[in-house]
Amino acid sequence: MSLQEIKVIAFDADDTLWVNETIFRRAEEELCDLLKEFMPKEEAAKVLFDIEMKNLPLYGYGIKPFILSLIEAALTITEGKMSISIVEKLLEKGKQMLKEPVELIDGIDHALNVLSKKYRLVMATKGDLLDQERKLIKSGLEKYFHHIEIVSDKTEKQYQKLVKQLDINVNEFLMVGNSLKSDILPVLNIGAHAFHIPFHTTWAHEMIDDEINHPKFKSFTQATELLDVL
Amino acid sequence: MSLQEIKVIAFDADDTLWVNETIFRRAEEELCDLLKEFMPKEEAAKVLFDIEMKNLPLYGYGIKPFILSLIEAALTITEGKMSISIVEKLLEKGKQMLKEPVELIDGIDHALNVLSKKYRLVMATKGDLLDQERKLIKSGLEKYFHHIEIVSDKTEKQYQKLVKQLDINVNEFLMVGNSLKSDILPVLNIGAHAFHIPFHTTWAHEMIDDEINHPKFKSFTQATELLDVL
Repeated sequence: MSLQEIKVIAFDADDTLWVNETIFRRAEEELCDLLKEFMPKEEAAKVLFDIEMKNLPLYGYGIKPFILSLIEAALTITEGKMSISIVEKLLEKGKQMLKEPVELIDGIDHALNVLSKKYRLVMATKGDLLDQERKLIKSGLEKYFHHIEIVSDKTEKQYQKLVKQLDINVNEFLMVGNSLKSDILPVLNIGAHAFHIPFHTTWAHEMIDDEINHPKFKSFTQATELLDVL
Repeated sequence: MSLQEIKVIAFDADDTLWVNETIFRRAEEELCDLLKEFMPKEEAAKVLFDIEMKNLPLYGYGIKPFILSLIEAALTITEGKMSISIVEKLLEKGKQMLKEPVELIDGIDHALNVLSKKYRLVMATKGDLLDQERKLIKSGLEKYFHHIEIVSDKTEKQYQKLVKQLDINVNEFLMVGNSLKSDILPVLNIGAHAFHIPFHTTWAHEMIDDEINHPKFKSFTQATELLDVL
């Protein structure tokens, strides 16, 4: 295997380019705190997670699905006995989340700047289209990307489609991201390169236990470390 | 101008390929009916529309934004005095809408079948990504489309980007859709062809008063009439 063959680098967005998971976990914290008279916090977090998982195939990823699931979780946790003002607070919370300023991951601006001179860069994410476009513009990183690919889920099939659309061979494709489940495993499975830069917080849905040992895989702790090998 | 120059035909999705607006209007009806003791129906519909418009830049288009706005409208209409069971009903309504079977527009299957043999067809819509992918698969129309383009809004800039991605000249592009505002005017403005097939119901947000008289514009009442000229 050779890193020389890489032509296109795709970057995941949430928690690879900018902080995301922290915002969701903070909102979850707040809800559980709001409802602690009805249910212990940890138990409430579990109810929310189960509802999110049940709704995922129907709602998809992003802030709007999350808020709908938060409201449903509040109804479940309080058995319908909550005050209507909590619904109001959750709607407001959702709008706040959508307006949240973008906080870049350390070193990512510099890394993209250097890499964009040598490779074609694309952004590949499974979030909500409007949301991700907004964050990309707010981030100031738009100029480094040749194009943006937003998919409903990150599966082998979706990656195969992406590589085909990019008009390159699969071994010329490198994916960089924080989620082993979404950004790394399906990419290695189709024969492309995948580099992992973990974020300190991972959503339970994105966690896997496997240890990866693959010739086309590397792991880093900082975005700028990419520059040592690419 | 000549129709012979057309190479790619883009079809809008909602209310061009399948029925959509009817489903939203029915849900709106139901909400206004549910809350009629708090406010006359017509006035309630106006509150909902205003809230949808205010939320549009933040939420975007689709069923999830609609449900969040329905809940917010219910809170406004009842001044927070509604029963929590209404929130439950609205969440349930949203899930129903997302699961609704796809009802094809008359003649569209035949029209796409014939046209797909002569032109490259793409689907271009501003709905929600997951939603639209799901509807396309349920519709059975996927096989006719070369690819699917989902944009956050249908502006001249977005159409220019689409034409560039398709790697054709702007006069080789034809858009077919039911909304003068989204599918026709911005397309004519960039110099491409645009054909209008109105749907019986139009969302107030998509209505315009202009009468269109343009060499690259045509209007039809039925999808199959496209075959008379293409």
